[in-house]
Amino acid sequence: MESKDKYELVSELARRRGFFWPALEIYGGVSGFICYGPLGVIMKEKIIKKFRDIFIRPLRALEIDSPVIMPEKVFEASGHLEHFKEPMVECLKCGRKFRADHLLEEAGVLDAEKLGLDEIMAELEARAIRCPECGGEFGKPSYFTTMFSTTIGPYSDAVGYGRPEAAQGIFVEFKRLYEQARKKLPFGVVQIGRALRNEISPRQGPIRLREFTIIDYEFFFDPEDPSCPRLPEVEDEVLRLLPKEVRLKGSEEPVEVTVREALDKGYIMMEWMAYFMALAKRFLEELGVPGDKQRFIEKLEWERAHYSVQGYDQEVWTDRWGWVEVSGHNYRTDYDLGRHMKWSGVDLTAFKEFKEPKKVMELVVKPNVEAIKEDFGEEAPEVLKALSKADKAELARSVEEEGSVKLGSYELSRKHMIISKVERTVKGKHFVPHVIEPSFGLDRLVYITLEYAYTVKDGRVVLRLPRDIAPVQVAVLPLLSRDGLPEKAREVYELLLSEGFDVEYDESGSIGRRYARCDEIGIPIAITVDHRTLEDGTVTLRDRDTWKQVRTPIKELPSLLYAFFKKRLEFDQLGKPL
Amino acid sequence: MESKDKYELVSELARRRGFFWPALEIYGGVSGFICYGPLGVIMKEKIIKKFRDIFIRPLRALEIDSPVIMPEKVFEASGHLEHFKEPMVECLKCGRKFRADHLLEEAGVLDAEKLGLDEIMAELEARAIRCPECGGEFGKPSYFTTMFSTTIGPYSDAVGYGRPEAAQGIFVEFKRLYEQARKKLPFGVVQIGRALRNEISPRQGPIRLREFTIIDYEFFFDPEDPSCPRLPEVEDEVLRLLPKEVRLKGSEEPVEVTVREALDKGYIMMEWMAYFMALAKRFLEELGVPGDKQRFIEKLEWERAHYSVQGYDQEVWTDRWGWVEVSGHNYRTDYDLGRHMKWSGVDLTAFKEFKEPKKVMELVVKPNVEAIKEDFGEEAPEVLKALSKADKAELARSVEEEGSVKLGSYELSRKHMIISKVERTVKGKHFVPHVIEPSFGLDRLVYITLEYAYTVKDGRVVLRLPRDIAPVQVAVLPLLSRDGLPEKAREVYELLLSEGFDVEYDESGSIGRRYARCDEIGIPIAITVDHRTLEDGTVTLRDRDTWKQVRTPIKELPSLLYAFFKKRLEFDQLGKPL
Repeated sequence: MESKDKYELVSELARRRGFFWPALEIYGGVSGFICYGPLGVIMKEKIIKKFRDIFIRPLRALEIDSPVIMPEKVFEASGHLEHFKEPMVECLKCGRKFRADHLLEEAGVLDAEKLGLDEIMAELEARAIRCPECGGEFGKPSYFTTMFSTTIGPYSDAVGYGRPEAAQGIFVEFKRLYEQARKKLPFGVVQIGRALRNEISPRQGPIRLREFTIIDYEFFFDPEDPSCPRLPEVEDEVLRLLPKEVRLKGSEEPVEVTVREALDKGYIMMEWMAYFMALAKRFLEELGVPGDKQRFIEKLEWERAHYSVQGYDQEVWTDRWGWVEVSGHNYRTDYDLGRHMKWSGVDLTAFKEFKEPKKVMELVVKPNVEAIKEDFGEEAPEVLKALSKADKAELARSVEEEGSVKLGSYELSRKHMIISKVERTVKGKHFVPHVIEPSFGLDRLVYITLEYAYTVKDGRVVLRLPRDIAPVQVAVLPLLSRDGLPEKAREVYELLLSEGFDVEYDESGSIGRRYARCDEIGIPIAITVDHRTLEDGTVTLRDRDTWKQVRTPIKELPSLLYAFFKKRLEFDQLGKPL
Repeated sequence: MESKDKYELVSELARRRGFFWPALEIYGGVSGFICYGPLGVIMKEKIIKKFRDIFIRPLRALEIDSPVIMPEKVFEASGHLEHFKEPMVECLKCGRKFRADHLLEEAGVLDAEKLGLDEIMAELEARAIRCPECGGEFGKPSYFTTMFSTTIGPYSDAVGYGRPEAAQGIFVEFKRLYEQARKKLPFGVVQIGRALRNEISPRQGPIRLREFTIIDYEFFFDPEDPSCPRLPEVEDEVLRLLPKEVRLKGSEEPVEVTVREALDKGYIMMEWMAYFMALAKRFLEELGVPGDKQRFIEKLEWERAHYSVQGYDQEVWTDRWGWVEVSGHNYRTDYDLGRHMKWSGVDLTAFKEFKEPKKVMELVVKPNVEAIKEDFGEEAPEVLKALSKADKAELARSVEEEGSVKLGSYELSRKHMIISKVERTVKGKHFVPHVIEPSFGLDRLVYITLEYAYTVKDGRVVLRLPRDIAPVQVAVLPLLSRDGLPEKAREVYELLLSEGFDVEYDESGSIGRRYARCDEIGIPIAITVDHRTLEDGTVTLRDRDTWKQVRTPIKELPSLLYAFFKKRLEFDQLGKPL
């Protein structure tokens, strides 16, 4: 073990046993890109399945899969083009480029992300910060848009970007999704997919990637009815919070409160946000991270994304980097839908019926076509068009108070319109839904699950992955590679494969070495086929964590293992102790 | 129905019920991009699961997940930068751009993809082809690279591309994957993920997309041992082939041969390719496409990708477009690994042991350090370095035949070297594995599965999706929305949800209308809770395809439905007929 930290140990294991590794090593690697190997792919799938079981299925949320590349207009509307950028400096000597705020933070500047370009420049000079690679001086800082840009099709003005979050894919499709939800609020929409962030100089393996998999969950609700009927399911869950009032006092000591208390004390603004934070805590526990290794830290104003009015990051303690964000919880209000309505000109409101229809007086302004024709002659159609587009209340006010109204180059007076008021029954109203967003970085979840599973027992690595996350569930091992044992073991292997288990067959090396191999990739159960198997059709099952063994008939394996992996049985219940 | 073709009917249903729709409609849409809705996402997952069950699990193939964006060098090596382009013309009047070969094909030119730019120009002129949008004249055709280009990080020379296939992600990681396969051939590696092709003007909905999901399967084998031990499993499968000898005669009439015959007659070069083609046929049958609506068409020389020495496309008959490719089967030889070896300088060979170690005479050339020092003085280290890098056989030949050898600016003679031959035992040899690649377009599979499932019964749409592909497996419907029926139905719903079924609850509208809704999205079984349920705990099950009904106790539902969806029971076996 020596001085290697857990990140190094886990990464080494991940590379060697095929969970993940730096992508493109034969070309020297490209920082910010990793490749998932066979075990990593299955583990990712299983984490997604768990997410669906906790967050999607019980709420009957909708899942979508929309493009990674989207046209510029989407990101103009979403505010990303304006806000999604980082301050960058270039070394005048070697030409290398760096995140300016990171350089300042490393030099001890607090809240460097608050600073503008001029302030950054001043700090760089005041602290005489030089290029960490060559010692050269820096030029002026500038902003770098951290989205990958491209062009769509053959026209160079059709700029597109790789999406930095999957959320926008949901907002732009709101109209259809609202229909799929049968026009009833609240409802959630989830997108799990690739996201791209063109980081300036990423350096933390799976923790900071340029290409990663994001789980964005947009939960739409009526701001006049923000209550969460599912709150009772989680209200006693204790959260470790670092709300902004605590942080602003300079404290790092979390307050421990129940979900109910967090809402009552105003630490969390919205019930749905508290609900999802509680689920997020449970989700991480299911991945093997105990509650006391988790906390929720509220983002301060200058740390929050441009669309957020309240944001909490769920953080997990890591051996190398300390607290690392695994999910963000933001109250996005009606920001995104409102902006896309404005940019697209398309109605993205929801409609709700009043309990009782309401009677309202409605202003009706009709054109007096005869009078308009008389006064405007050939231009009458243009005037009628202008009139139909004008705001009715403003028209009425203007002609009443000022005697006339200007529409473009036309001046209209009272006689050109017929203004009346009619009583109308209104059944309901249109409004822009509000949004609570929990958002997870899947790659970090994979890494953290591995770090928390990594243990050493009697000098050997045992990867204690939760049994429903382990990429291989069962190994089938003939005790010896002769005497008909491999043939029998193959039969058991094929049986479990056809029953849908993730199963591996291995006959090479001593049984001790094979057990060690199983432990290292976290296979919960190893099944050994020995001479007795040939006589009475029983096999031994070995528990990864305790190394205990039990003996069980082959024919009972499928149902026993099914129950074990559903967590309905524990290992000791799988057979007779040896 | 009138004159709508199946594409129109299926697309309309897909949009309305949330399988998929054109992405970004609120911004006018962007051609070549679609969005999958809730039902489409689940259907995609289930098609992937079926692919895994047929292609991956039985062969214990490895799955990886590598970046979508890769640096330019990868595509230089792979040949895509050179070959992945299409001829384009621009209208001189309106500025619109078109695929030049498509314009020629529409004008009746055969094999337009064979033509170079000059020939295209000549044909455009000879046939006086004008802009289909405005009638304007075209300028000179040029090539357009159909990859999305971007830059990685802040340096503008770090060009990257969106991958046009997932295969390259596998080839560049071959070293690690070979280790994961425990250095044993043959083995397969699969990548299922996004691919990007910047088509000039895509126009066929889910059939031709700029962003799509690809399933690339690279199967590595020893070219000296190309036999497929699994061939007996498929050798009697009949394939409908259009081999090149038939096509070159101008025929479109497929030959029907067994896999065995196709190999014996030389229609298919490699056993592994024939094996995967047979699996591909079965896969499509499982998705609902009968064998006689499928064919395999061999690519002619000018139609083949640059890396392929033999290629067959699996095609499926569609109502609107006729034969449409759903998978490609290519013999890529050692092309890709060989190129990446050359471009990266990294060894990507496999090693195989000879059955018996071989004795070989090996040439050994050692430097005569004393003599070199004497003659070259201070430059001796440089000379030694040059010598160590030189080809031994060439050194020996040169000094033997010519008396000296030039290494850069140094001239060395016989006395500067000690040349000898030693007998050495060689255990095996290094070689570059060959590759058979089956490759599927997942989006087309989704569309085609829907088209083949689309039927009309008594004037109503019934989507006869295979039961293991249907996104919703079971609907639970209270007969009435009162008398305690909804509460009881909710219980049944929660039971099935917790057992892991994809289940939907619906109480709005008449029971007839709800059945129709279920049929339209292909829910295989609808469960109705009625007054009798409250008395004796039984429910009715209704079959989507026959509309037959049976009655079954609630408590038996989980195991019965489990068996039904595993295809171990048929509908009639699920209860007593009504």
